[in-house]
Amino acid sequence: MSHYAELIAVGTELLLGNVANTDAQYLSEQLALVGVDVLYHTAVGDNPARLREVIDVARRRCDLLIFTGGLGPTYDDLTKETVCLAFDRPLDFHPEIADEIRHYFDTVFRRESPACNLQQAYLPRDCTVFHNPVGTAPGCAFTADGVTVVMLPGVPRECRYLTDHALIPYLKAQQQEVILSHDLHVFGLTEPQVQERLADLMDEAVNPSLAPYAKPGEVMLRLTAKAGSEAACEELMAPLFWDARSRLGEYLYGVDAGSLEERTARLLKDRQLTFSAAESCTGGLIAKRMTDVPGASAVFLGGVVSYTNGVKAHVLGVPQDVLDKYGAVSVPTARAMAEGVRHLTGSDLAVSVTGVAGPDKDDRGNEVGTVFIALADGRKTVVRKLDLGTGRERVRTMAAHHAFDMIRRYLTDLPMEGE
Amino acid sequence: MSHYAELIAVGTELLLGNVANTDAQYLSEQLALVGVDVLYHTAVGDNPARLREVIDVARRRCDLLIFTGGLGPTYDDLTKETVCLAFDRPLDFHPEIADEIRHYFDTVFRRESPACNLQQAYLPRDCTVFHNPVGTAPGCAFTADGVTVVMLPGVPRECRYLTDHALIPYLKAQQQEVILSHDLHVFGLTEPQVQERLADLMDEAVNPSLAPYAKPGEVMLRLTAKAGSEAACEELMAPLFWDARSRLGEYLYGVDAGSLEERTARLLKDRQLTFSAAESCTGGLIAKRMTDVPGASAVFLGGVVSYTNGVKAHVLGVPQDVLDKYGAVSVPTARAMAEGVRHLTGSDLAVSVTGVAGPDKDDRGNEVGTVFIALADGRKTVVRKLDLGTGRERVRTMAAHHAFDMIRRYLTDLPMEGE
Repeated sequence: MSHYAELIAVGTELLLGNVANTDAQYLSEQLALVGVDVLYHTAVGDNPARLREVIDVARRRCDLLIFTGGLGPTYDDLTKETVCLAFDRPLDFHPEIADEIRHYFDTVFRRESPACNLQQAYLPRDCTVFHNPVGTAPGCAFTADGVTVVMLPGVPRECRYLTDHALIPYLKAQQQEVILSHDLHVFGLTEPQVQERLADLMDEAVNPSLAPYAKPGEVMLRLTAKAGSEAACEELMAPLFWDARSRLGEYLYGVDAGSLEERTARLLKDRQLTFSAAESCTGGLIAKRMTDVPGASAVFLGGVVSYTNGVKAHVLGVPQDVLDKYGAVSVPTARAMAEGVRHLTGSDLAVSVTGVAGPDKDDRGNEVGTVFIALADGRKTVVRKLDLGTGRERVRTMAAHHAFDMIRRYLTDLPMEGE
Repeated sequence: MSHYAELIAVGTELLLGNVANTDAQYLSEQLALVGVDVLYHTAVGDNPARLREVIDVARRRCDLLIFTGGLGPTYDDLTKETVCLAFDRPLDFHPEIADEIRHYFDTVFRRESPACNLQQAYLPRDCTVFHNPVGTAPGCAFTADGVTVVMLPGVPRECRYLTDHALIPYLKAQQQEVILSHDLHVFGLTEPQVQERLADLMDEAVNPSLAPYAKPGEVMLRLTAKAGSEAACEELMAPLFWDARSRLGEYLYGVDAGSLEERTARLLKDRQLTFSAAESCTGGLIAKRMTDVPGASAVFLGGVVSYTNGVKAHVLGVPQDVLDKYGAVSVPTARAMAEGVRHLTGSDLAVSVTGVAGPDKDDRGNEVGTVFIALADGRKTVVRKLDLGTGRERVRTMAAHHAFDMIRRYLTDLPMEGE
């Protein structure tokens, strides 16, 4: 059975702009993967009368209502009460959930659970309980008058956990068909360029379908099939997958790969190689992104953030006459930075980035967005010059993307377009 | 005149979870500052029938409807047409906007504007035009049947620009009163601790009002006053401001300060001092956050990301016997890292961070969340031991917060609680 869904976020903090409604994004993404059509997102404050009106509008236009937030222990958390009133369903006390809440306080906070938290042990009669081991508010689901009602905690970490471990399995169990997806990660082509290569495939494809998602600086394509089993989904997807794959060629950096840094870490690990980074305009972003990947220490030794020429010369050993003659943003400096950090750390590979992130040109007249990236392996050093356009944050993000991509290309014997 | 607002985002990409609705957050934050009560956020796809129903629901419950998105040049951009149909208002062609669009293509993309973009030069009759110098879709506002209707482009950069430069001035011009706010930034106290210190002030305060906003790892308090002039607002706020300030004491790190790193950069700049960082578990996060601040190069020389013991020893000069005897996560290692990076870069001050970000304990049995932070100034080195709890990302964020706060405390002669 396929659903039309409305996501209803409850919390005045959303309406004050204190936080973004990231729960709606995460839920939408996960629901799309199991074939649920999300038609509306709504956010409303901690106000029972307004929430009640939102419910009455939603139940007329959708058959799956997913509430996030307002399940906390304080007096302004009114989602359960208001929803149960709307669907004429009493709240029952669950002693086993009260025990879970006490246990959570015991082990996580090492203190007794306040009385108000036991309010969270009340749930709608005859609901499916979504037990919450990462917080105190359980979620739940029930069906009334042809509408499936789901309530999840609003804290993003808890909402994600219960979406993955309770809501999605609950919805899958209702479905006759299996839905399966693969993500194709593309770097180095713009979305229009990807569409040009794949236009006929995307237009014709229904099951499996192929749709592009823009991500900052890259493109993701999602291939999705519906069938009676996972194996049948895979079989259905295979021809389109191989066709898309061959058309994307070297720009396809991974399948279900996560991110460029995760893909890079995986390739380095497989080959038992290490790397280090010398960063000027990216200012630590490459190191930060690489160390976001758990287990990065197996492949990433460390790096130097050489934000000033002094550090480039004295720490990385960039010769002073290179800096004087060519400037910090140049092929010879990028080369010496990569070689310097490789020597310092003893890594197998090293990358360096030096460029102009903006807002202004540098003192040698290099335009904003001019970036040099070098890769050194001890035998040779390749330097690429890039023009990454404007916008400080965008230039930094794209420069880091390109550095990871350069390592990926090196490790998979692809051309690096450098000198 | 004060408004009840609904923010209506139009775009199927939101319902697919492809992007988060950050426009709603930004608008909510800015509207709160000028006293507009946002009651609902709604998101709907590129579907004229559903958008029309959303408009009909919204106009019954709010008197300010702000649409974002669906103003682009392609066939599925239908916001203007659907809104104008709902409010019975024709669309007129504006030749001067067509010129602006041609000019934008000319100067930014260096090519001729496609014919479809000229569709963006149609606007509702008798509207206030919000000219858009950062994109091709102008915004607009008009009032019909007692409802003020605003349309803004959905691209976050353009939405923000037009919010700041057109929408907020437009709303202010309608208001009799001036609304002014100051943000008090607090680090080192939890939200309940802040509430305990200020409970009576927050409960009693109406005009000016004082409300807390939780931010990752810190607390922000917003003090807001309404009066006939900016000066009258300031006068109204002064007693509460000074009272709150004295109760928050050393934990108040800044007023309208932006972030801990901005505050730290400002203090260093004022004192004409530089710093560098040696990062282990934060893996470049301190450098990345500092270089997010434009102009950081005046105070931040650079740093070393020493993710492995080899880099700690060979680049930073941490003695091998210190690493062998005490381990990487220890007071002596933190001390040697800070002194090492200070020596390497020649900075006035240096910080170091070494700790266990998780997911697992380290090989010496240090718990996740154990972090040492050192500050060296060439005369002495102070080391703090912190227990930052669990969660890899949270531990890294909090460790970086504490490093910036330690510099701030040093520069303002506050206690650092280290050894």
